[in-house]
Amino acid sequence: AMVTLLRRNPEIQPLLAILQVKRQKDTCRINYFDICKELLKLNNDPKVHGVYLHLPAASLTSRVLGALNPEKDVDGTTDLNMGRLVRGDASEGFVPPVAGAVLDLLGKHGEFLPVKSVLLVGGEGPLRLALQCLIERSGVEVNTSHWNSKSLQTQVMQADAVVLLGAGNMEVPPTWIRPEALIIHCEPALKPGVATCVAFDLINKQPHLSFLFWKTKSDHNCNVIHSCNRWIQNQQYRPWRLRSLKLLPLTPVPSDIEISRAQTPKPVDQLAEEIGLLPEELEAYGRNKAKVQLSLLDRLHSQPDGNYVLVAGITPTPLGEGKSTVTIGLVQALSAHLKLNSFACLRQPSQGPTFGVKGGAAGGGYAQVIPMEEFNLHLTGDIHAITAANNLVAAAIDARMLHEATQSDKALFNRLVPTVNGVRTFSPIQISRLRRLGISKTEPTSLTPQEVSAFVRLDLDPSKITWQRVLDTNDRFLRKITVGQASTEKGQIRETGFDIAVASEIMAILALSDSLKDMKDRLAHMVVGTSRSGGPVTSDLVLKSNQLYVLADKLALKLVGRDGFVVTEAGFGADIGMEKFFNIKCRASGLRPNVVVLVATVRALKMHGGGPNVSAGAPLPREYINENLSLVAGGCHSNLKKQIQIAHLFGVPVVVALNVFKTDTRAEIDLVCQIAKTCGASDAVPCHHWSQGGRGCLELAQAVKEATRRPSNFQFLYPTEMPIVEKIRTIAQKVYGANDMELSPEAKSKIDYYNQQGYGSLPICMAKTHLSLSHMADKKGAPTGFILPIRDIRASVGAGFIYPLVGTMSTMPGLPTRPCFYDIDLDPDTEEITGLF
Amino acid sequence: AMVTLLRRNPEIQPLLAILQVKRQKDTCRINYFDICKELLKLNNDPKVHGVYLHLPAASLTSRVLGALNPEKDVDGTTDLNMGRLVRGDASEGFVPPVAGAVLDLLGKHGEFLPVKSVLLVGGEGPLRLALQCLIERSGVEVNTSHWNSKSLQTQVMQADAVVLLGAGNMEVPPTWIRPEALIIHCEPALKPGVATCVAFDLINKQPHLSFLFWKTKSDHNCNVIHSCNRWIQNQQYRPWRLRSLKLLPLTPVPSDIEISRAQTPKPVDQLAEEIGLLPEELEAYGRNKAKVQLSLLDRLHSQPDGNYVLVAGITPTPLGEGKSTVTIGLVQALSAHLKLNSFACLRQPSQGPTFGVKGGAAGGGYAQVIPMEEFNLHLTGDIHAITAANNLVAAAIDARMLHEATQSDKALFNRLVPTVNGVRTFSPIQISRLRRLGISKTEPTSLTPQEVSAFVRLDLDPSKITWQRVLDTNDRFLRKITVGQASTEKGQIRETGFDIAVASEIMAILALSDSLKDMKDRLAHMVVGTSRSGGPVTSDLVLKSNQLYVLADKLALKLVGRDGFVVTEAGFGADIGMEKFFNIKCRASGLRPNVVVLVATVRALKMHGGGPNVSAGAPLPREYINENLSLVAGGCHSNLKKQIQIAHLFGVPVVVALNVFKTDTRAEIDLVCQIAKTCGASDAVPCHHWSQGGRGCLELAQAVKEATRRPSNFQFLYPTEMPIVEKIRTIAQKVYGANDMELSPEAKSKIDYYNQQGYGSLPICMAKTHLSLSHMADKKGAPTGFILPIRDIRASVGAGFIYPLVGTMSTMPGLPTRPCFYDIDLDPDTEEITGLF
Repeated sequence: AMVTLLRRNPEIQPLLAILQVKRQKDTCRINYFDICKELLKLNNDPKVHGVYLHLPAASLTSRVLGALNPEKDVDGTTDLNMGRLVRGDASEGFVPPVAGAVLDLLGKHGEFLPVKSVLLVGGEGPLRLALQCLIERSGVEVNTSHWNSKSLQTQVMQADAVVLLGAGNMEVPPTWIRPEALIIHCEPALKPGVATCVAFDLINKQPHLSFLFWKTKSDHNCNVIHSCNRWIQNQQYRPWRLRSLKLLPLTPVPSDIEISRAQTPKPVDQLAEEIGLLPEELEAYGRNKAKVQLSLLDRLHSQPDGNYVLVAGITPTPLGEGKSTVTIGLVQALSAHLKLNSFACLRQPSQGPTFGVKGGAAGGGYAQVIPMEEFNLHLTGDIHAITAANNLVAAAIDARMLHEATQSDKALFNRLVPTVNGVRTFSPIQISRLRRLGISKTEPTSLTPQEVSAFVRLDLDPSKITWQRVLDTNDRFLRKITVGQASTEKGQIRETGFDIAVASEIMAILALSDSLKDMKDRLAHMVVGTSRSGGPVTSDLVLKSNQLYVLADKLALKLVGRDGFVVTEAGFGADIGMEKFFNIKCRASGLRPNVVVLVATVRALKMHGGGPNVSAGAPLPREYINENLSLVAGGCHSNLKKQIQIAHLFGVPVVVALNVFKTDTRAEIDLVCQIAKTCGASDAVPCHHWSQGGRGCLELAQAVKEATRRPSNFQFLYPTEMPIVEKIRTIAQKVYGANDMELSPEAKSKIDYYNQQGYGSLPICMAKTHLSLSHMADKKGAPTGFILPIRDIRASVGAGFIYPLVGTMSTMPGLPTRPCFYDIDLDPDTEEITGLF
Repeated sequence: AMVTLLRRNPEIQPLLAILQVKRQKDTCRINYFDICKELLKLNNDPKVHGVYLHLPAASLTSRVLGALNPEKDVDGTTDLNMGRLVRGDASEGFVPPVAGAVLDLLGKHGEFLPVKSVLLVGGEGPLRLALQCLIERSGVEVNTSHWNSKSLQTQVMQADAVVLLGAGNMEVPPTWIRPEALIIHCEPALKPGVATCVAFDLINKQPHLSFLFWKTKSDHNCNVIHSCNRWIQNQQYRPWRLRSLKLLPLTPVPSDIEISRAQTPKPVDQLAEEIGLLPEELEAYGRNKAKVQLSLLDRLHSQPDGNYVLVAGITPTPLGEGKSTVTIGLVQALSAHLKLNSFACLRQPSQGPTFGVKGGAAGGGYAQVIPMEEFNLHLTGDIHAITAANNLVAAAIDARMLHEATQSDKALFNRLVPTVNGVRTFSPIQISRLRRLGISKTEPTSLTPQEVSAFVRLDLDPSKITWQRVLDTNDRFLRKITVGQASTEKGQIRETGFDIAVASEIMAILALSDSLKDMKDRLAHMVVGTSRSGGPVTSDLVLKSNQLYVLADKLALKLVGRDGFVVTEAGFGADIGMEKFFNIKCRASGLRPNVVVLVATVRALKMHGGGPNVSAGAPLPREYINENLSLVAGGCHSNLKKQIQIAHLFGVPVVVALNVFKTDTRAEIDLVCQIAKTCGASDAVPCHHWSQGGRGCLELAQAVKEATRRPSNFQFLYPTEMPIVEKIRTIAQKVYGANDMELSPEAKSKIDYYNQQGYGSLPICMAKTHLSLSHMADKKGAPTGFILPIRDIRASVGAGFIYPLVGTMSTMPGLPTRPCFYDIDLDPDTEEITGLF
C-alpha cells in the first residue's frame, strides 16, 4: 500500500532532514533556541517527511524533543512516540530504526531456528525498552540482565538469542553461548555523520556488521517513506468523523438566545478535524469562527462534488417564512440523523436588518447557527471591509472631481506623477491608463500638453456618477442626500445617496468571484460613472478578502464528499432569489444544483389564497389562526404551483418544505402536501425543525436525499447572447407570468448605451419586489395579464450583470419605531449580550 | 514547596475527577465520543487538577488517552507522560501511583537491608516498564524474568528484592527466596470502584497489603496535589522567555513593505507563551493577531506594575516627526538589546489616513509593526464595530424624529410598547426612561394621555442634534451634508455631517473605559442632542468590544513585571496629545507615567527656528538639507524648551529623542542634545532606529531606563472641580503660552448650559491645531502674547470630557490628488498586497 501511494504521486519525493550542530572553534555550545527554530521550520515544511536529530544525547532535552513534530520523528525519539511504542500502538509513531533492524535480524534467524526467548544484556533507556516492548509483542519471551549480574551465564546459556547492548569493552565468553543461539552486538554510537551498529551471527561465524548497519539505514529510510505516505494519506480526502452535539428540545420553545446559550459550541478546530480539514487550512477567528484557506481546493481537486441543494421560498408575507431555519434544520437532519456529511452555506447577515425589524439571520428556535450573537454581529468583519472599500472609491471620486475642478493640468500632473529623488515615473496603473488613452509613451516628460490633459482629467460628469456610498445600517435618511456643502469643498455640491452595504457591487463581486484573480478582474471593471465625453469610467480597486461565496460552496462540495450535501439559500421568493441564483451565480460558478427545496407556510398560502393583509407589528387576522382549507387550497393552486413551475423551467426537481406553525391543523398540512405533489413536486413534507431541531426535518432530509436520485437536467433560462430586451422579456413572461414588459425612455436609452459599450451579453439581475410575483406588492397569488414596467436600468459591470429597476425598490431600508436593538443589553459581569432576539 | 504553595492559596482545593462507565442492563457498551467529550470538559475545568480513568484496560485507546490533557493525567497513562517517564524526565508528567508505591516500599526496606538488585517477574506493558525505568534510575540493578523462564529460580535467589507482576495464580516457592529478600506481590486489578495491590513483606512475615494499598491511594492523592500545585504555579507571574527575531538591516533601507515581508512573524501563540500568557487567555485572530482576555488582570492582580513611558513630540511639521517609529524602536532596544520585558501599546490605525496621505501607522523602516498590512488594514475590526455602533445611533435619531413627526401619541405608544400574546409590558430601558420622567408606574395601560405623550416623545430639536455619523474614510465631501431628501422621508431634511470614525465619542469611550461596566455607563450617558424643551437627550447604547485601550496599558504593565517597560504614544504635539493623556486618560486610568520621551527632528527644529514653510508634496527647501546651526538653535530654544517645560508642569522627567535623518550633521545633532539638556531634559540622545532597528535606539533605551530611577512627582494641571472657564484658561496660559483666552458668545452660553446640566466638573479636551503651540498653524517656535479664541464648546458626556473648539479644526480629513491607495495592488497568485507604502 505504501509503495502504491507513492507511485501514484510521482511528484512527491520522500525527504529526510538531518539536523546537525557544527562544532565551532573546539567548543560545541548548542543554542537551543536556534535548534527549536530550525525544527519549527522543518515541521512546517510540507516537503520534509522525516527529521533525524543527529545531536549528542545530552542535547535531546524535553524542549528540543517537544519542538519536533511527532509525525516527522522518524527516529521515534519524542516522548509521545515512545509512549505509543510502549503502549503498543503501531498505527501512529515510528519504530526506532536500530530496534527495527534487530527485530528484523531476529526474524531472519527465526526462519532457520526457532527463537522463543531473547535476553537483553546491559543497556538502559529508550532503545532497550523499545526492543523489550517490540520483541514481547511479537510473542517472544524477553528477559533482561545486567553485565555484572551473577545469573548472566545461566541466562545467556538459556536464551535463543542474546542482544548485547551498550557493551563497550564488555564481552560474553564464547563458551557461554549455545551453538545454535544468535548473538547480536548492538552498539549505536554517535559519531559525526554516522551511527554504527555491529552484529555477529554465530551460525555463520561471521560478523553481521554490514547487514545490521544497512538495515538500520534502510529502516530509517523506510520510516521516512512511511512518514511521507502518511503525509500523502493526510492530504487525501478523509471520511468525516463528525459527532453531532446532542439536542434536547424544551417545550415551550425558549428564546433564540436562550437556546443558543444552552449549547456549548464545539471548538472550531475540533470541528475542523472531524470534517477532515488540516490544521494549516484553518485560520481561526476566536474559538468559534474560522476561515478556510483556498488551498483546500487544490488539495481536494480530484475529489468528486457532493449534492448541491438550493433552498428557495414561495412569495413570502412581510414576516418571512423561514428559509434560513429550513436550511439549517435540513442540514441538522442530514448530518445528525441520516449521518450524511453536510454543510449549510449561509451569507454573513447584514447588521442593518439585524438591528432593525428582522432580528437575527442565524435561523431560530432549534434550527439556528450558534453562537448566534457572534454570527449576527460582525462575524469575521468582511461586510465592514466591503463598506470601507466601497466608500474609499466614493471618496476618491468626489475628491478627484474637486481636484480637477480646482487645479491646472500642470498642477494635477505634478501631483499625480511627482518627482521622487529627482525622478518622475508612471506607476503600473498609470501606464495602463495611458494605454487605454492610446498613448504608448512611458517617459512622463515626453507627454504633449494635450496628452497630459487627457491623462490627468477623468472629466467625470457629476450628474452621471452611479457609484453610491454604503453603510451596514438601516439609515433611511441617507437614501438621498446632498454632499459637499462645507465651504472647503468650494461649492462642488451634488446629490447622491447611501445604499445598505450588502447592496454594494463589491458584495456582488465577492459573491460571484471564483478565484482571487477573477475577483481582481471584476473589481477593476466596476464602472463608477460617465465622463463628460460619454465614456464609462472604471475604478481600479484592489481589495483583500477571503470571503468569496462561490468558493464557499465549492469548498463545501469537495469537503462533504460524493454522497454529502451542501445546502445553500437563495434570497427572497423563488421568482427573484432562485432565478438569479441559477442564471447568474450558477453561470459564474459552473455549479449545478441537484434539488430545489421550496419553503412554504400555511400563513403565506392563505394570503395567496385571498386572505387579508399581513403586516409586521399588527396582530394576525383570525383567518391565519383558525383552520381555513379553501384559502390554503387557493394559495397552493396559485403561488405554490407557479413557483414549482419556475424551478422546473430550469430542469431541477422540487421538494416542498412546509414550515409548520403551531396554529396549522392536520388537515391544512395534509392539503398542502397533497396539492404540492399534484403540482409536480417530487415530494412535499411538513417540517418541525423550529421546535424540534433536526429530528423535525427528518422527513424533509429523506425526501431531499430521494430527490437527488432523480435526474436533474439543469438548463439556463436564456443564453447570455440574447439581446438585453429579450432577456428581460423572457424573465417577465416565463418567470413572473407577465404578458409583456415595457421600457421607460430612460431604460431604453440605457440599453442602447450598454449595447454600445459592449455590456449587452451580461446576465440580468432584476430588482423587483419580493412580495408579489408581479411588480405590484399587493397582488398575491399568481398574477397574470400585467405589463412589467422597467423604470430604469443600471449595470454592475464589474460584478457582471445588468439590473433593471422594476417599480419602486429601495436599496436602503429604514428602522421601525421600535427597532430590535432597543432590547439589546450587555451584562458587564458575565460579558454576555442580553435581549438579542 | 508544594505544601507552601497550597497553604498560601487556601481557597484552592486539589480535586481528583474519576471517570467511570456505568454498566447498563448487562452490557457495557462504551461510547467513546461521550468519554472524550467528558474529558474535554474536565480538561477545561480549572477546578479539576487530576483525572483518573477508571475504565477497562481495553477502553484506554489512543483516542481516549489522546483526549486527556497530560497535565491532569495523574495516573501517568497517556503516551506523552509514559514517554517522559521512559526518558527520565521527572519535571513534567506523573509517576504512576502503583509504581510509586512499589518504589516507596523498596526504599523503606532499603533502610534496613541494602537493595542492590531487583527482579521483576512477569507482567507486561506500561507498569513493568515504568518500574524498570524508575528503579534503574534510582541506581539499582534491574533484571526481568518470565514466570516460565528456566532461570527464574537462580534469578530469584540472587535478587535483593523480587516484584511479582501479573501473577494471577502463579507463585514463587518460599524456598527459593533468600531470607533477607523483599517480595512485593503487585496486582493492580480493575474491579468496579477499586484498584487493589497486595504486598508481602518477608522481613516481618506479614502481608503488606494495607500499606501498599494505602500508598497507592496516597500516591494518587500526592499526584493530584502535585498537579494542583503546578496549576497554581502556572497561574502565577512567569518570567519572560522572549527570544527576539534577528534583524539584519540593509543599506539603503528598503521599503516598509519589503522590510515587513523579509521577516517571518513569530506565531502569536508562541509569542504569548514566551511572555507568560496562558493559552486560554488568548483569542487568536488568524496566525499573527490575538486579543487578550481581561481575566489576565485578575490572575496578575498582585503583580507590581512595570514602568510606564509616554512618547510625545515637539510641534511637528506637516510631514510628521516619527513618534511611532521611536515608540517601536525604543521597545525593540529595551527588549532585544537590554533584555528588559517591554511592550509598545499602539492604537489601531485609522484607515482614512492609511489610504490618504500618511501611509501606514505601523511605524516604518526597521522600526515597524509586522505584518504591517494586517496592522494597517482592519486589524481585528474594532474601528468597524465603532463605526457601526455610531451610525446605528445616528439612524435611530433621524428615524425617531420622523416617526414622532408623522405618528400620533397612541400610534407611537402601540409600536413602542406592543401587545405580545395579548400582553403589553415595558422593557427595562423603558422603565428607566419613565423613572427619569418622574413616572413611577410599571403597568402600560395605567399611563395618562399626558404621561403617554411624555413617554413616547423624545421631542428632539432637529437643529440641536450633536451626534454626527462617521466613516473610516477620508471623505471630505461628507463634512457638511443634507440628509432626508428622498420623498420617503417626507421633507424632514436637515444639515449634518460625517466625522472620521476615530473621532466618534464611542472611540473616546473605548479609550477611557477601565472595565466593561465603566464602558457601559459611559455609553449610556452619551448626549446626542437637545429636546425642544432644552434638556439633554442620551443614547442608551450597548456595544460589545474587547478593545479597551486603558486596559491594554494595564494588562501590559502587569505582564512586563516590576522591571519591565510599557511604552505608549500620545497623539500630535506634546501640548495637545500629552496634555490630554495626562489630564484625561491618566485621570481615568489611575496610571502614572514615569518618563516622557519627547521626539524631535532637526527638520522640525529648523522650522521653529525660523526656517521656510514645509509642506507635503513639495520638495524640501535647502535649509533643511544643508547644515544650519542657528536655525537648529532657534528651534531648540523656543519649541523644544517649551515642550520640555510642559512635561515638567506634570512633574514627569523628560528624555529628548532626536530622530536622526541622513541629512542631519554631527554638529546639528550634538547641538540639539546639548541644548535639550540645558533646558532641563534628563537626557537627550540621537536615534537611528529607522535605519538600524533596536540597535539604533540603544542609547535612548538606556537613557529612559536611567530616567525611571529619577523621582516622578506626577500631578494634574488642574483639579476637575475648577470652573470650566478656569480650566480652559489654565491650559491656554500654562501649556500654550497664551496671555489669556476669549470665549465666543456661543461658547459662553454652552458653558452656562453645561454647568446647569451638571457637566461642569468634566476635564477639558482641547480641539486645537497641532501645527503650532498657539491656535495659528503658521506661528512656529513658542508664540507668546496671543489670546486663544474659543469658537465653540461641545461635550462628550459619555466619554467624560468637554471639548472647546479652537480656531478651525476639521473632524473629517480629505484625500490628496494622489492618495496612497493608487499604488496598492493585489497579486492573485501569491495573495500578497503590493505597493503598500
